[in-house]
Amino acid sequence: MKALEEKILREGTVLPGHILKVGSFLNQQLDVPFLMEMGQEIARLFADCGVTKVLTIEASGIAVAVAAAAAFGTPAVFAKKHKSGNVSGDVLTTTVHSYTHNTDYEIMVSREYISPTDRVLLVDDFLANGKALIGLAELVRQAGAETVGAAVAIEKGFQKGGDALRKAGLRVESLAIVESMSDTSLTFRAQ
Amino acid sequence: MKALEEKILREGTVLPGHILKVGSFLNQQLDVPFLMEMGQEIARLFADCGVTKVLTIEASGIAVAVAAAAAFGTPAVFAKKHKSGNVSGDVLTTTVHSYTHNTDYEIMVSREYISPTDRVLLVDDFLANGKALIGLAELVRQAGAETVGAAVAIEKGFQKGGDALRKAGLRVESLAIVESMSDTSLTFRAQ
Repeated sequence: MKALEEKILREGTVLPGHILKVGSFLNQQLDVPFLMEMGQEIARLFADCGVTKVLTIEASGIAVAVAAAAAFGTPAVFAKKHKSGNVSGDVLTTTVHSYTHNTDYEIMVSREYISPTDRVLLVDDFLANGKALIGLAELVRQAGAETVGAAVAIEKGFQKGGDALRKAGLRVESLAIVESMSDTSLTFRAQ
Repeated sequence: MKALEEKILREGTVLPGHILKVGSFLNQQLDVPFLMEMGQEIARLFADCGVTKVLTIEASGIAVAVAAAAAFGTPAVFAKKHKSGNVSGDVLTTTVHSYTHNTDYEIMVSREYISPTDRVLLVDDFLANGKALIGLAELVRQAGAETVGAAVAIEKGFQKGGDALRKAGLRVESLAIVESMSDTSLTFRAQ
């Protein structure tokens, strides 16, 4: 999505540790009109997939998921994060490793919100090592539903999580793929 | 908003401890088409206020804030929660008491995302004792900006936080105000 690449170049900042800061439009501050355009683009890419539900993880995935679900006209569901394994009730749950914080956390969704007939699109704001998407796909598997693919706003192509998921057979569409970045330059993968 | 009252009666569940569970459309699962209608209603209510930015708190406020900002055509900003006082950088921050979890937490926003010229609408999914909205208004005050009011999806009228804020001069609009609730009945305040 050319408009997203241009926005990253214009407003993004590269911080030490391969952190791409896009807090002015995708994280802490949300450029909502632009976000809704991203949602439209996601709906266009997965138009032929019969998506019935969008699934993400709190907190920063929620905005992109809402934008995508608005374009599809479907509900969105967000998995909650728990640092402990203290989860009760009839829930779908799995463990995700965070490289950023070097810790494991549980994600969970009440079973009632993903039914076996659902065709689920996974959505997130960032894709780096792919562990969050793998966790979400596991929740869908536990529900007996089908994952039709994953849509991500910004993929860090150099961290290879997206490529690994694609090799494993998951359809992953990223609106922008950062192929390399440094203090002075940022390049995108041609799509 | 009559449609929201009907949806609460149809899909909401009252749990012990005055908890109103609306996870099927407003929390864990989001009925996004309906959410966008709520955003339109919020934009209608505050149409004459020159809103330039919508401010909420992660995580469950984000969806309503995105819907409202989409209707206004403005950015949304979400304050982050921290359990500790460990906040650095040029940030706006204050302490909020959570009655639900009986604990204090910090909320913070980077100063760059609220400018002194902003006219800010506070948005949240629930209003009970009002402490979250008071915290958000404090962040706006620190930024030197103006709070034009607060829009909430569901207010628990019997917890009096909304009425206290109105008495203090804040314009608070709730799309539904639950006046009383029990296992067997739920009544709304006429608006």
